Amino acid sequence: MRIVEISASECKELLGRVSVGRLACALENQPYVVPVCFSYEPECLYVFSTLGQKIKWMRQNPKVCLQAEEIRDRSNWTSVVVNGTYLELSEPQYTVEKQQARKRLVKISDWWQTPLAARREQMSDLAIEPVFFRIDIASMTGLHGLAEGQ
Amino acid sequence: MRIVEISASECKELLGRVSVGRLACALENQPYVVPVCFSYEPECLYVFSTLGQKIKWMRQNPKVCLQAEEIRDRSNWTSVVVNGTYLELSEPQYTVEKQQARKRLVKISDWWQTPLAARREQMSDLAIEPVFFRIDIASMTGLHGLAEGQ
Repeated sequence: MRIVEISASECKELLGRVSVGRLACALENQPYVVPVCFSYEPECLYVFSTLGQKIKWMRQNPKVCLQAEEIRDRSNWTSVVVNGTYLELSEPQYTVEKQQARKRLVKISDWWQTPLAARREQMSDLAIEPVFFRIDIASMTGLHGLAEGQ
Repeated sequence: MRIVEISASECKELLGRVSVGRLACALENQPYVVPVCFSYEPECLYVFSTLGQKIKWMRQNPKVCLQAEEIRDRSNWTSVVVNGTYLELSEPQYTVEKQQARKRLVKISDWWQTPLAARREQMSDLAIEPVFFRIDIASMTGLHGLAEGQ
């Protein structure tokens, strides 16, 4: 097994192919990590969520880290780690961006709608809106593991 | 799609079945998340790693969060989030614990050996030892998503 660092462009290609990652945030140095669906655009990631612990935490501390991967099997995998900054897109000037991201995320899957449905059920509030945010990418690194002979 | 919280015992059962999770740590409120192989024991998780960013950070801030999941498909999944504390098991009194965990982790896979091999290659140091640590579980929560009708 050899593990090599992959280039920034290879990291970006992976982020363009996959749509599920694990988003970590932190408050008072307690980390918190949950799966999210994202849509990658150059220099940023778009995510829909519902109001919950991660949103509350990221509003207080916008430093985030997202990990995504492609695993063919245990001897052929790639993992990318992105450091970035949370930016909530709730202002009117982001409406166009929001609509475009919503379209992209709907194409990916209905996963982002799922926690929303659950939250609606819990809160008995059909009017609850998803929180839409962007992660501005500060840096990214990736590792590729491949068994010898492959 | 319905999403329901699962019980602590269901969380524990999942942790016993899966062996790969995403471990988040934080330093100066910057989170960092990477995949790890773990072995679950009641009240704790055992992990082998090599010395790197996450170990350096956890030595300074032992608060960690681990997420693990089982995804049958997009309409049937379970995700568990564990909060806990990092404890490095380098002292002589942990030798037995270390050997037992090593056996368990070797059974799971050779994934934990993989980054070690890479680190050895990079450092040209065949004598480098893996770092062995335990995450003492403080709390855990889990969500189960299931499409209606399944």
